[in-house]
Amino acid sequence: MTDQKGPNKDQIAKLLAHKKEHFGRLTPTVLFEKIKHGDITGLSESITLLESEKESDIEKSQELLKMALPFSGNSIRIGITGVPGVGKSTFIETFGMHLIEQGKKVAVLAIDPSSERSGGSILGDKTRMSELSKSDKAYIRPSSTAGSLGGVARKTRESIVLCEAAGFDVILVETVGVGQSEIAVHSMTDFFLLLMLAGAGDELQGIKRGIMEMADSILITKADGENVKKANLARSEYKNALHLFPPSENGWIPKVETVSAYNNKGIDKVWEILVQFVDQLGPSSWIEKKRKHQQEYWMMETLKDILLQSFYHTKGINEYIEEVRKKLNKDEITAYQASEMILSYYNEHK
Amino acid sequence: MTDQKGPNKDQIAKLLAHKKEHFGRLTPTVLFEKIKHGDITGLSESITLLESEKESDIEKSQELLKMALPFSGNSIRIGITGVPGVGKSTFIETFGMHLIEQGKKVAVLAIDPSSERSGGSILGDKTRMSELSKSDKAYIRPSSTAGSLGGVARKTRESIVLCEAAGFDVILVETVGVGQSEIAVHSMTDFFLLLMLAGAGDELQGIKRGIMEMADSILITKADGENVKKANLARSEYKNALHLFPPSENGWIPKVETVSAYNNKGIDKVWEILVQFVDQLGPSSWIEKKRKHQQEYWMMETLKDILLQSFYHTKGINEYIEEVRKKLNKDEITAYQASEMILSYYNEHK
Repeated sequence: MTDQKGPNKDQIAKLLAHKKEHFGRLTPTVLFEKIKHGDITGLSESITLLESEKESDIEKSQELLKMALPFSGNSIRIGITGVPGVGKSTFIETFGMHLIEQGKKVAVLAIDPSSERSGGSILGDKTRMSELSKSDKAYIRPSSTAGSLGGVARKTRESIVLCEAAGFDVILVETVGVGQSEIAVHSMTDFFLLLMLAGAGDELQGIKRGIMEMADSILITKADGENVKKANLARSEYKNALHLFPPSENGWIPKVETVSAYNNKGIDKVWEILVQFVDQLGPSSWIEKKRKHQQEYWMMETLKDILLQSFYHTKGINEYIEEVRKKLNKDEITAYQASEMILSYYNEHK
Repeated sequence: MTDQKGPNKDQIAKLLAHKKEHFGRLTPTVLFEKIKHGDITGLSESITLLESEKESDIEKSQELLKMALPFSGNSIRIGITGVPGVGKSTFIETFGMHLIEQGKKVAVLAIDPSSERSGGSILGDKTRMSELSKSDKAYIRPSSTAGSLGGVARKTRESIVLCEAAGFDVILVETVGVGQSEIAVHSMTDFFLLLMLAGAGDELQGIKRGIMEMADSILITKADGENVKKANLARSEYKNALHLFPPSENGWIPKVETVSAYNNKGIDKVWEILVQFVDQLGPSSWIEKKRKHQQEYWMMETLKDILLQSFYHTKGINEYIEEVRKKLNKDEITAYQASEMILSYYNEHK
């Protein structure tokens, strides 16, 4: 009988289930080995593990991260932002390929919490970075869009650690210039690139105030064809404007350049700026210190997140806050009384 | 016997103690009546009550505020910042006197939490505003310096309400351009004035990044004597720079002017800018909406403050955080694990 020569259908199903249970998600140690050998599939699977909200997965992913931490930190982390239409994908494609030509390995991550979406999906499909996505020196990972900004940001930060352990030299973290996510990206990268279009008109509407002052470099994109003149003008205007800004703590003066991904012009200058940045700040270990501060910042942010979560999970608290807010808006109570009322509710119902 | 004609020494002492108990701090109703009649002593006593940390005083002050709320809101609230040495006091003195000449009543408040002091005491003595402090159309109140920024900010916000109920038309809230206090002032005022010195050199070191983008108007101070040319140059530079900034949500374009408090030049223009601001934004009730948002913001901030306070008051938590921070800095744990550890400590010791 054939039954004796191999497992029957039931046995196979059981075996598969067992296999899935035990090997569907590899153990942290196995994943770590894969990452250390630069295995992209292992890296992808690890990031999927990071993105899982299952408690057992969180534990596993933290174990994995702990193993990866000592092997991380050897990259330059670059935040990239700009409104939809500024040409972020095209820039990243061209810049990424340029880096690969310099012998670098490039990882592209993104922060794009669904709640903050305002059009222009980030890394939605890799077709917009067709060359880069084909290269074995590049790894492109779209943003996990589920969850709060805090959660998405944590996953991206942790993905940076894994990409570094996997040997990537340059990490690009992309976001869209419309909200809080810039601040998140700024606080997980070494260098912050702002992409802008020439002509300070409606294109600017999307960029939030305060973002410009975070930029270590502003790139005027699409500086090709009839746009060249306008782009050059914009460049000198921004240059003049930036020298009026308060200098940043590290003494770095933001650089303004024009780039054309289409003509592959100016892309080399961007890498030169980054090399200059590292040369200038390396000796003072500024980048290292900044990263330590960022780690502490994230520790405290995560803590606050967790504390506030337990607050907001109190039954009926959102409805009660809404009630109190209405009273506040009618000047029936003071802001202090409002917060005291909400706190009493919390203490009674937690 | 003289004893029969009046109270003896003991009786007098008892009477005085009784009087102090009941009238040393007037009741909210009496204080409110005084405020409504524009009584400056009553206003001062009320703000002192706001500043008290005693539980019974807090209750009283909230009761008073509740009565005052419907009579508040009829002023324009102006935040003023700039580094020490920019000439804030002199500007406020001159600007304040100009407003009084226009028939306005002017209150000057300040935010200057002791922890953020970096030199240049604010409103430390009224001698620096000698004319203004003598006018019965002006009220100058130095910042309460005790406590956290959150606490100081709350008291200043609440003082605004009382000053408005007392009939003041213009509230100036002064701060020093070096820290978080700008954000606090920005979120309790309608209009944000940034004072700057001409010459974009070392003077700027003190201003934090991001502050400039909050400004509704930048004033180049000390535009007198040999400084005039430099100030005019700075004005046109900032004007050019600001038009490159993302426009603010309300559509207002920040105005840049030069002023000389010494020669009393340009001060009238500042008031004209404010009138223009109110004219432009009044019809859309933008200011009203902004104030409602600010109220809600403060409600949530106060709530967060109270929640975090209870966290930080947990016995030994600061030492434990320090321990965890060290592990984090040595890459022994992840930021997420660090926050989990601190949270477990909190849950065990709260």
